[in-house]
Amino acid sequence: MKQKELIVIEDILGSNKKIAAEIRSKLEARQILTVNFMSSPGAGKTTLLEKIAERLKSGYRMAVIEGDIETERDTEQIRAKGVPAWQITTDGACHLEEMVAKILPELPAGLNFLFIENVGNLVCPAGYELGERLRCVLLSAPEGDDKPKKYPKAFTTSDCLILTKADLIPHLPYDQEKVRKEALELNPRLKVFLTSAVTGQGLDELVAFFIASLDRPPHA
Amino acid sequence: MKQKELIVIEDILGSNKKIAAEIRSKLEARQILTVNFMSSPGAGKTTLLEKIAERLKSGYRMAVIEGDIETERDTEQIRAKGVPAWQITTDGACHLEEMVAKILPELPAGLNFLFIENVGNLVCPAGYELGERLRCVLLSAPEGDDKPKKYPKAFTTSDCLILTKADLIPHLPYDQEKVRKEALELNPRLKVFLTSAVTGQGLDELVAFFIASLDRPPHA
Repeated sequence: MKQKELIVIEDILGSNKKIAAEIRSKLEARQILTVNFMSSPGAGKTTLLEKIAERLKSGYRMAVIEGDIETERDTEQIRAKGVPAWQITTDGACHLEEMVAKILPELPAGLNFLFIENVGNLVCPAGYELGERLRCVLLSAPEGDDKPKKYPKAFTTSDCLILTKADLIPHLPYDQEKVRKEALELNPRLKVFLTSAVTGQGLDELVAFFIASLDRPPHA
Repeated sequence: MKQKELIVIEDILGSNKKIAAEIRSKLEARQILTVNFMSSPGAGKTTLLEKIAERLKSGYRMAVIEGDIETERDTEQIRAKGVPAWQITTDGACHLEEMVAKILPELPAGLNFLFIENVGNLVCPAGYELGERLRCVLLSAPEGDDKPKKYPKAFTTSDCLILTKADLIPHLPYDQEKVRKEALELNPRLKVFLTSAVTGQGLDELVAFFIASLDRPPHA
């Protein structure tokens, strides 16, 4: 990378950290647990959020911020579940923190969870904080079992690894133990969940993990 | 995006175009057809290159440059097919042109094809030219049928769309006609191939397309 490119990237990252810290302090003051979902395109972020919404709706309030390069498709899908959702379209960029900061005043009172669906990209978003308290990387079975060491930063910076599309494993050359082992070698503190939005596998455990991570009990 | 960020991005893109033009002129002088493969992680770029190598080996000479964030796994896989291959690891960056330029003097004589496997990312690589004559975007069935309009630049800048993992379609909520239609709305000149590295579907047609795109006939 060239010197000038490096300096500007440092500037952007410095500004990112500052904005992320402001977002974090505002969300923590409101006792909202913020979760950042990162993955490749098509790993199943939006569908997983729909399934989480179904499981949380009886006792918790959640909102979603959808990051996308283009289109509002994902937000429409989430709103159809009765969840307040905001769309960010980045027009090519892959960091969302300034746009997230602008949405904060619009968040409704009494929220327990804010899920931020990052742009579909396993590379750039790993370098930017969005003020989240939990970062989750999703990896779908069809992407293959060799991805953690090829895209290490997404794994080393995350708190949990959500393996998605487990229902497809019988049709794939895929060894979930290999992925798990490789990811844990990169980051031993990763909490790993094997899930399927089709069969429901692993979703209750995942939602229980999010609930256990809350700072305050839900409204009665 | 901030003003300073924009200026540097313009600088990088200007420098990219210059280097890409130099690469292109050197490769065209040697009558090498250069193909740039772009996709998300795990869409099947490396496996497709192995299958192409098997089909080209009797009459043509090919080489591969593998772009990756980390690891040399893909290069080892390609070399096992008897194909000369070079690894580029970008340590996080997503444009390869300077590193491609450095490899050119090492390419063997008499090459017909140079395939460049871009880093696994459907966003950033679309903005950078590598001196290729054909750009192909790969999209795997498990990524879903809604991706072209979400990641338009990869589709508007490509010459062909290779739909991969067709063997998984029976297990997925996936409408290949929808993808095809949406991609062609973005870019009517896209040549579309529906392929499976598992069953071999579509591979002969794809390889015939590459051969038909050659500037010179193969060596006898």
